This record gives sequence, structure tokens and C-alpha cells, in this order.
Amino acid sequence: MVDWEVKCAERTHYMTRSAIREILKLTQRPDIISFAGGLPAPELFPVDRVREAADLVLTERGTEALQYSASEGVAELRDLIAERMSRRGVQVTRDNILIVNGAQQGIELIGQVLLDEGDSLVVEDPTYMGMLQAWRPYNLCYHTVPTDHDGLDIDALREVLKAHPKLLYLVPNFQNPQGVTLSLERRRQLIALLDEFDGLVVEDNPYGELRFGGEDLPSLYEIDAEYSGKRALDGRVIYLGTFSKILAPGVRVGWIAAPMAIMEKLVQAKQAADLHSSPLTQLIVSATARDGFLDKHILTLREVYRDRRDVMMDAIATYFPEDVHFVKPEGGLFLMVHAPKHLDMTALFKVALDHKVAYVPGADFYVGGAAAGGHTFRLNFSNARPAMIEEGIKRLGAMLKDVLVPQYMP
Amino acid sequence: MVDWEVKCAERTHYMTRSAIREILKLTQRPDIISFAGGLPAPELFPVDRVREAADLVLTERGTEALQYSASEGVAELRDLIAERMSRRGVQVTRDNILIVNGAQQGIELIGQVLLDEGDSLVVEDPTYMGMLQAWRPYNLCYHTVPTDHDGLDIDALREVLKAHPKLLYLVPNFQNPQGVTLSLERRRQLIALLDEFDGLVVEDNPYGELRFGGEDLPSLYEIDAEYSGKRALDGRVIYLGTFSKILAPGVRVGWIAAPMAIMEKLVQAKQAADLHSSPLTQLIVSATARDGFLDKHILTLREVYRDRRDVMMDAIATYFPEDVHFVKPEGGLFLMVHAPKHLDMTALFKVALDHKVAYVPGADFYVGGAAAGGHTFRLNFSNARPAMIEEGIKRLGAMLKDVLVPQYMP
Repeated sequence: MVDWEVKCAERTHYMTRSAIREILKLTQRPDIISFAGGLPAPELFPVDRVREAADLVLTERGTEALQYSASEGVAELRDLIAERMSRRGVQVTRDNILIVNGAQQGIELIGQVLLDEGDSLVVEDPTYMGMLQAWRPYNLCYHTVPTDHDGLDIDALREVLKAHPKLLYLVPNFQNPQGVTLSLERRRQLIALLDEFDGLVVEDNPYGELRFGGEDLPSLYEIDAEYSGKRALDGRVIYLGTFSKILAPGVRVGWIAAPMAIMEKLVQAKQAADLHSSPLTQLIVSATARDGFLDKHILTLREVYRDRRDVMMDAIATYFPEDVHFVKPEGGLFLMVHAPKHLDMTALFKVALDHKVAYVPGADFYVGGAAAGGHTFRLNFSNARPAMIEEGIKRLGAMLKDVLVPQYMP
Repeated sequence: MVDWEVKCAERTHYMTRSAIREILKLTQRPDIISFAGGLPAPELFPVDRVREAADLVLTERGTEALQYSASEGVAELRDLIAERMSRRGVQVTRDNILIVNGAQQGIELIGQVLLDEGDSLVVEDPTYMGMLQAWRPYNLCYHTVPTDHDGLDIDALREVLKAHPKLLYLVPNFQNPQGVTLSLERRRQLIALLDEFDGLVVEDNPYGELRFGGEDLPSLYEIDAEYSGKRALDGRVIYLGTFSKILAPGVRVGWIAAPMAIMEKLVQAKQAADLHSSPLTQLIVSATARDGFLDKHILTLREVYRDRRDVMMDAIATYFPEDVHFVKPEGGLFLMVHAPKHLDMTALFKVALDHKVAYVPGADFYVGGAAAGGHTFRLNFSNARPAMIEEGIKRLGAMLKDVLVPQYMP
């Protein structure tokens, strides 16, 4: 018999299965209304358009789509991305773009290229769980920065930057899990601080195009370019984008946009990881997106998701107890509820299932785990239809009121 | 300005770009006949079948194909693979199978789960370059084992196993780059040795189904099961398979087949790497392969590639100088030529381009680099049509005779 535990590498001791994915398995009973997943609304997938695109690609360019191809990605898709990223004046070129299998692989590759074991990393607290999971093998030292309704606390950021951390990881728009957006003023302050401390930031932006109203804020790479006067992607920002939330996750197409000087190492890491992403899915994405289709599709997503957020807001106002708090998200898929501190939302998850409703307990989004965020939970509003959202929030509100009542007993 | 070299992780110093991929860029002039790539014949891709499969999948299961899905892979594809791997009596189940983006990602994930920095690894010499590249960041200690026409030298293997290396990596069928196949007797000896020394082997088998004649040899996982009497995939072998050579590389679908006890860690590594492989391409592969199509398609590939190998053999006999050596491959895509030791086939690559023919210099396949394999070169016979193969070998033979002549001058 092989003793696999002995055979495993040291780093596997830090590796864990995604807590969310385990939770999702429990929420798939048809009687449960689930706000747990981070799933886009499947009824909005442009299935017909994708089918036509697949047919076109395999008819006109079948052998190209099925053969080995470039590690950097398919040229026309990289051009499409570069064009979209250049729309507000910063020149992003094909050479800045590396196609990856969803932004998650971008996180993985950036880690391989930049992180040594024991390095220090600055993160929002709470932060994106998939990043924590991907980088766990590096046994990083985390500097957490608290957030409010305008995102990251800049004074706290200045303090941690004094320790010269290797990297800052940030979801500036409609953050997962909190739904919070970093304000324009703080974006400018952040870039100035990075310049002062010779810092780097990974700008993970899966939700940025899903804004429900008001003006889009400039990306960190744009503010960085403005700050340095370069008008090119050649500064302190490595950007992560994905088609998962604006088209469909199943194609597994995302990208890293990075300064040319670091592209060579990222491409090497991509080659080692899986040679290259599928040219078939890349060409399908490109053929689906083109001729303005993607931009129009995004407008639809914004509308539908805005309605669902509004339904959830109204239902929370109606059904939740008063002593819960959250930031109203201006876009994206999520919000995070802070219940009274004595509530253990991880333990209450099973109670919620009894009420036939599900959320993701917040603890695992916090570097400090349950001690820091045991009283929080994340709600997704993109996946369920409005009537279901209202009913689910009603169930969850009843559960919360149930467990909170004893606190007010004499 | 950011000094990226200072920012990069230590491991990036060991990372390199694939030498082959760099070479391929030089061989894309239309006047050059290239034996350099490892490309399947694109004219044999079943493009129509894939297009019909894509249409069917997107018509009948569009939202499933485009949504997030399981990290382990799509159930029906895992079943199809398990069924094919069980055909000779060893019970392989869905739970043994993890879908990955081509076998290259399998190599990457196995490395993450099993290799600590500085670990020792046993490899054939020469060995698969993509493995060397993927695992370079671990700064491994290599034990090389020489090969002959029956594969790995078993006596030499016994010697290196005494040092208790972490892992053995092997391409037992029609090895890349040499085209050599490990004999049945040596397979049995190898498994017995692994058992004696409590060793593990990665059986990388991209070409195994492309045999040109004679009986297929049992896989190492089959011999291991027979040896232990278990009739299950639960021993010392981690198997890597891929659809790249038997269907099409562009779908990027491969798999790891491993004992259940190590699957959990492999799945965790897969989640961290990119969440999961594309359900769209997985479902397309499954719909393409089913109803016996894949088996029939493989028969076609065997025939065409056998003809091309034969044409290359005949041309080599006609046009090459006498003092070159190689093992005639019984399948797969490659053979490796050993020229006289004083020839530097890396330096001669440019001379070959002047003769409008290309190969891959062998040095990078050797752990010892040019000192060990500078006089070797790899030839691919799957990608070029027969007339081109003959003409290319003629050109290469002329070049070799040119550079060898001075040796015979008084």
C-alpha cells in the first residue's frame, strides 16, 4: 500500500478544497432557494449566438480551432480585449494580453511569477476566497486592510505599505464578497502610495462592467497610466479580466493584462501550466463578442441584475431584522450581510437549510477566519429570479429573527 | 519604473520558454519542410463531426455547457474515459478521473501535489521537454536512466531507486522524443522494482493508442494492478491521458487517472489552478467520441501515420549518411536520430533552414543538455504529407552529408 500522505509535497498541507464548492453541493436540493453560488443567470447566456459562433468557427477555421496554438492566445481575441481596454485613452496592445482559463488561472500564474514562500501580501479584509485558495501553498504573510463603503481604508493601507509587502491584491469594483467599490479619490491615493512605496497591485476586475448606474470609475491601470503620464499599460498594475461574468463562465476564457516587462515570465508560466488555452473556445468567444454584440449583451445583464439587486434590497428592508448591516452594491453579483457579532453564521447555515434557503458563511473570506467574520454571510442576487429572491429573503429573515429573539428576552 | 527582475519570485530564475516553441516560429516559412513540431495531421481532424457535436451540445445542453461546473470534470466524459481505460480488465471508475487542460496540466498538477523543491526524480534520458519545463521551478535533482531499443535500462533503474527518489516519470509508448517503447518484460520488472522500493511512477501516455502494428502492450497501471492482485487503479501508478493526439489538441482536454487516495489533493490543485476545465469542450469531446466514433477514428490515424513513418524510414535509408542511428518507432509521432558525436545539431539547425528543412535539436530533451545530446535531433512524421516527407529527408540527408564529408578528407 502506498502511504500517499507521506508522499505528498509539503505545500499540500496548506491546500484545501474550496469551502464554497462544498457548500454548493448541499444547496442543490430543488426546494432550497440558494444565494450561495456566484453563478451568472443561465437564462441570459446567449446560447444561440454562441452556437452560431461555434458553427462559424468550425466551418471557416476548423483546423486552426482544433490544432495547437500560441501560448499567448489567439491574436484576434487579444486584439479585441486590447481594444476594449483602450477605450478610455490608455493604450493597451495585443502584447500586453495573455489569454488564460478564467481569471482564476491568472491569479495562479501571477502567484507563480511573483510570490516566494513566506512573502507578504496586502488584501482587503474580507477578500476573494479563490485567491486565498490559489496562493495558500505559498504560506503567505497577510496584511489585512479594513474596508468601508468606499472600499479600502487608505490610512491603514499606508501603514502596511511601510513593511514593503510584495504585492497588493484588490477587487476594486463590486468586490467579492462585500459588493463594495473603491472610490475614485481612494484609487488615486492608492496609486500615489504604490508609487511612493514602489509597490505592485493585482487589479482583479471580473465585475467592473456590471455597473447598475452612474459613471464607470477608471480602472487602476488607467489611473496609474495617468499618474505616470505614460498613457500605456506599463506601471504598477497587473490587471485580470474575464468573460465569465459578461458572457459565460463555461468557456473558461479570461486574461492577464500586464506590462510588457513581465509578460515573458507569465507566458513561460502559462506554457508550463497547460501550453495554451483552447483556440476553439477563444475563437468562439471572439466570434460571439464581435460586431458590438458583447456591449449590447452587457447592457442587458446590467438591467436584469440591477432589478434583482433592487428586489433583494426591498426584501431585506421588509423581512430582515433591523440590526444587520451591509453596503448596497452598485453593480456585480454580491452583497455581504453583517449580522450581530454573536451570531455564528457558519453554524446557522444548517438552520438556514432547514428554512430552505442558503447563503455562503463569510468566515472563509476573512484572513482571520471565523474570529473576524463568523457573523457575516454573502448573498448572490444574479442567479435567482425576482420572485425567488423575495421568497428566499423572507425565509432567511424569518430564520434570523428566530435566532435573534432570545437576545431580547429578559 | 518598476524593476520587475527584482520583483519576480526566486523560482522564475529556473523558468524558461519552451525551446521547441521558439524553434517553431523559425520554421513557419512556407518554403521550409518542417519535421520540428509535434503536431497531429490537421487534415485528419474530424472537423465536421466536432461541428455537429458542438451544435448538439449547444442545442440540447447550452446552459450546462456555458455555466460553471464541477472541478473533477463533466461526469459523462469521465465515464467515457473510465470505460476505455477499463477495457482490459482493470476497473477504473469515474472517481479515478480528473479532467485537465491537456496532459501538460496533468504534469503541472502532479508536480504541485507531489514535488518539494530539491526532490529527486527519475527520468528516461532523453525525456519529455514539457515535463522538464513544468517542473523546473522545483529545482529537482534528476536521476537519468539510459534507454535502448526496449526502453529504460532496468539495471540502471534499480541502482537509482536505491536513492529512494520521490517519483519516476515515464513515457512508455513511442516516447517523445525517441519513439522507443518499453518492452513488456521491462514493464513487469519496473513495477516489481517500484514495489520493492516503495516507488511511484507517472505514466504519461499520449501516444499509446497510435500503434502501427502488433499487439498493444498493457499499461503500467494494468501491470501494477495485476502485480498487486487488486484489479483496480489503486497502486503506484498515476496515469496521464489526452485527446490531443487521438482527436485534436485544440480542445485542450486531457485527464489524470489516479488512485482515489490522492484524488482529493489533485482536485484541490485543479481548483486553485483554474476552478475546472471548460464544460463546453468536455461535452463536445464526449459527443464527438461516442458511439464508437473515436475508436474508428484512431484506426484511421494509425494507418495514415504508419504510412508516413514508412515513407520516412525509406527516405532515411535512401538519403541519410550511414553513420546515423535511431530506433524505428512502432507508433506515435516521433523518432530521434543520433548523428556522429562530433556534430552539433543545435548549431546545424540554421544550416538545415538554409536547406529548407527543419528538425528539433535534441539537446534540450537531455537533462545533461548539449553535452549529452548535442548530436541528436528529433523528427516528426505525423504532420507532413508523404511527398513532403521524402523531399524533406532528402534535403536533410544532403545537409548531413555536406557537413560530414570533411571528416573523411585525408
